[in-house]
Amino acid sequence: MEKERLKKQIEFIVEIDKLKHIYRRTYLMDGSRNENDAEHSWHLALMTLLLTEYTLEKEIDICRVIKMVLIHDIVEIDAGDTFCYDEKAQKDRSKREKRAADRLFNILPEDQSQELRSLWEEFEERVTPEACFAASLDRLQPLLHNYYTKGYAWKKHNVTSDMVFDRNKHIEEGSITLWEYAKEIIEDSVKKGYLLP
Amino acid sequence: MEKERLKKQIEFIVEIDKLKHIYRRTYLMDGSRNENDAEHSWHLALMTLLLTEYTLEKEIDICRVIKMVLIHDIVEIDAGDTFCYDEKAQKDRSKREKRAADRLFNILPEDQSQELRSLWEEFEERVTPEACFAASLDRLQPLLHNYYTKGYAWKKHNVTSDMVFDRNKHIEEGSITLWEYAKEIIEDSVKKGYLLP
Repeated sequence: MEKERLKKQIEFIVEIDKLKHIYRRTYLMDGSRNENDAEHSWHLALMTLLLTEYTLEKEIDICRVIKMVLIHDIVEIDAGDTFCYDEKAQKDRSKREKRAADRLFNILPEDQSQELRSLWEEFEERVTPEACFAASLDRLQPLLHNYYTKGYAWKKHNVTSDMVFDRNKHIEEGSITLWEYAKEIIEDSVKKGYLLP
Repeated sequence: MEKERLKKQIEFIVEIDKLKHIYRRTYLMDGSRNENDAEHSWHLALMTLLLTEYTLEKEIDICRVIKMVLIHDIVEIDAGDTFCYDEKAQKDRSKREKRAADRLFNILPEDQSQELRSLWEEFEERVTPEACFAASLDRLQPLLHNYYTKGYAWKKHNVTSDMVFDRNKHIEEGSITLWEYAKEIIEDSVKKGYLLP
């Protein structure tokens, strides 16, 4: 029994290696290449650890936030990275990602499959304080990457400050401090010409 | 005061982006390229989450293990990845990594600098149950990568089964089940010709 269980867990661990091949629109801080989902998820987990003090809700389970950000993009192994400003692709994103969750999480033993699925759904629904904070960081991180690459990905896709403002305003639902900081970055990016007004 | 603190935290978050450029000897599961430290750390954090039930010590703080694996390789931003079978480079590894820890963790506010430093030292000392389990996973993960790439990195560096056995035997200090599994993989790798006997 234990062997069968471990076999499934290892199968999942091997399968998710593919997340290292899912490239995002975001560039690494030095602009040398696109970032992948595994790197992004690691970065978010560390940001969670370091920025805990800024959560809107003070009673928050940080370990659950870390787990959430570690797994939040796994569905993209099948569903791909959907560019946040691509309205057409966003339309069927949810359907594609649910199908991916069905296949991927079901590789695991039943109890763990349910645990990861429910963590992922919690992240997607963005209702609990943990999910709101995880979503704040998931927005702030690419904002930092865009800022430090002087708007490399923004320029490439003709993104305007309104679009960025609109896309990122729910940072406030997770952290007022981080939203204040994000607004400063957006304003400074316009001022410096990294982002279209 | 809060602004100054957040500034330091962001500076660190930006600095550690460099971990995505530190390539290891291990190849991705499909053999297409080397794995980097950020990807490796993400993979370990998820393995921690999934393999908790196999820890040798039952009273274990899994959240601390996750934090430890997330930060355990950050020093390699300055010190580089030291190949585990390179005896010469291993000699001054500790000195190089301590210098790196001094510079990198000190970017953070004092309290967080100390927290991360102490997590890193705990990992390196491999005494607590958390550090032993973290170290087990840090060994098991590249073993899986070597097995699934049919010994690609092993063959490239003329690694023998004795070397792998010796390098990995402390998996047992973190988990008997995982060590049993690792031994099976090593034996099967020799049988299949992935690894020199």
